[in-house]
Amino acid sequence: VTDARPIGVFDSGIGGLTVLREIRALLPEEHLVYIGDTARVPYGTKGPETVRTYSVNIARTLMQHGCKAIVIACNTASAYGREAVAHLVQRPTIDVIDPLASGAIQPGVRRVLVLGTRGTVASQAYPMALARKHAGLTVEQRACPLFVPLAEEGWTQGVVPEEIARTYLADVCVDGPPDAVLLGCTHYPLLESTIRHVLTERGAVHTTIHHAGVYTARTLAAELRLNDIAASPAQQGKTRVLVTDDPGGLDAVARRFFGASPGPIEHITLDLG
Amino acid sequence: VTDARPIGVFDSGIGGLTVLREIRALLPEEHLVYIGDTARVPYGTKGPETVRTYSVNIARTLMQHGCKAIVIACNTASAYGREAVAHLVQRPTIDVIDPLASGAIQPGVRRVLVLGTRGTVASQAYPMALARKHAGLTVEQRACPLFVPLAEEGWTQGVVPEEIARTYLADVCVDGPPDAVLLGCTHYPLLESTIRHVLTERGAVHTTIHHAGVYTARTLAAELRLNDIAASPAQQGKTRVLVTDDPGGLDAVARRFFGASPGPIEHITLDLG
Repeated sequence: VTDARPIGVFDSGIGGLTVLREIRALLPEEHLVYIGDTARVPYGTKGPETVRTYSVNIARTLMQHGCKAIVIACNTASAYGREAVAHLVQRPTIDVIDPLASGAIQPGVRRVLVLGTRGTVASQAYPMALARKHAGLTVEQRACPLFVPLAEEGWTQGVVPEEIARTYLADVCVDGPPDAVLLGCTHYPLLESTIRHVLTERGAVHTTIHHAGVYTARTLAAELRLNDIAASPAQQGKTRVLVTDDPGGLDAVARRFFGASPGPIEHITLDLG
Repeated sequence: VTDARPIGVFDSGIGGLTVLREIRALLPEEHLVYIGDTARVPYGTKGPETVRTYSVNIARTLMQHGCKAIVIACNTASAYGREAVAHLVQRPTIDVIDPLASGAIQPGVRRVLVLGTRGTVASQAYPMALARKHAGLTVEQRACPLFVPLAEEGWTQGVVPEEIARTYLADVCVDGPPDAVLLGCTHYPLLESTIRHVLTERGAVHTTIHHAGVYTARTLAAELRLNDIAASPAQQGKTRVLVTDDPGGLDAVARRFFGASPGPIEHITLDLG
């Protein structure tokens, strides 16, 4: 059996394109519909109830596109909205937190540092997910709120992002460098070289930095097989990118996150009040 | 005749408390209801249509509180939503752009530098308002998108904000320092000392920096008299601050913008989707 229906992917904005990119690379035969909720971005600074409402609203819109599975490509929405979305859609629902937590636990990993938005850090979603997988880990978390606007501005290298990263990471590694750093926000991969630079200054030379994208794409592929809803390998997967605010001027930003042009960005009208 | 009804004030978030503060100081007898649309903050990076929709939605909510006048304490909402709000409410509607543009044109001012969000700068609202008041001005604008998250984080002094301000202001003053700098975003007053520091480095030692708050409060006071809807001088004005997202953790931020505690911050539920 093959299933030609699209996979729905969403994020608060265009950060989730770092996840879409890995799904596109791993599953070239799948049709993908991405919604970036740019009219209400960011989610990371907002409260649980608000993030849940927005997540359900976007997931409902993806269902209207006939999606066979949903990927929540936003950490804050994964932390606060996963259950509500899964309950609504009654389809395979993949978040970014579980795949990243599982993927980062490799042999020899004892100390883990999680970087995320204030919302993701406050939710304790990563410490809980890590504890479910492995009992003996030491987990530290740091909220890095300015990383999101920096990534959106494309200001990812140089004095300013380095100095901001130094401030956020000032007191990590006091008991020894982390074995694994989890980029718990889909914007942060754009700042990876700056984060690595600052960690190296602080002596963390053998630290592995993990993104959610690859692990999430693998989890999605496994779920598609498990549920027998994968597309035919002969299918040529199409990518549609929709945003809730005016898409004007987004092309350059989208290219930074997707690594190439994801094609024309379309506007989708939601009832915004 | 005196009028006990409250004045409605709104912003995309809590930046507008810098305006509320000046209204409170000038008009201690007026009741004030403030709504910060923290569930959808920021407006400054969003498109005209989205900002207009949100502004009308919040103004409608203020009307349900029986407000006698509306102050749009947000530059982007003033630029894109003023007409739609005035049309909806059919009451005196005061924005921040016109009062700031008028207030900043003082004898001897020829060169004006406007700092604002990307949305406010793109709207050309300040150059147009300035041209209406005075024909011979030279007006430059600069979008300073990272100033909003810096102000919200309370990261307003030191190496990081200075370096960001240096980058934004790198090529201003090439033909001579501005006589007047307009802080065209209600968040920016928190960064005034950093902005002044960087302007001084660039030789702008006689430049006056103007905030919207004081001028907007004066314009409001004049409108109240003109429309004969001012409160009795004997009235003790109450201040209510409402936000559309969870108010948890906002007290410290609100105090930075209002200069004191504005009292308990209440949650107002909008239909967010």
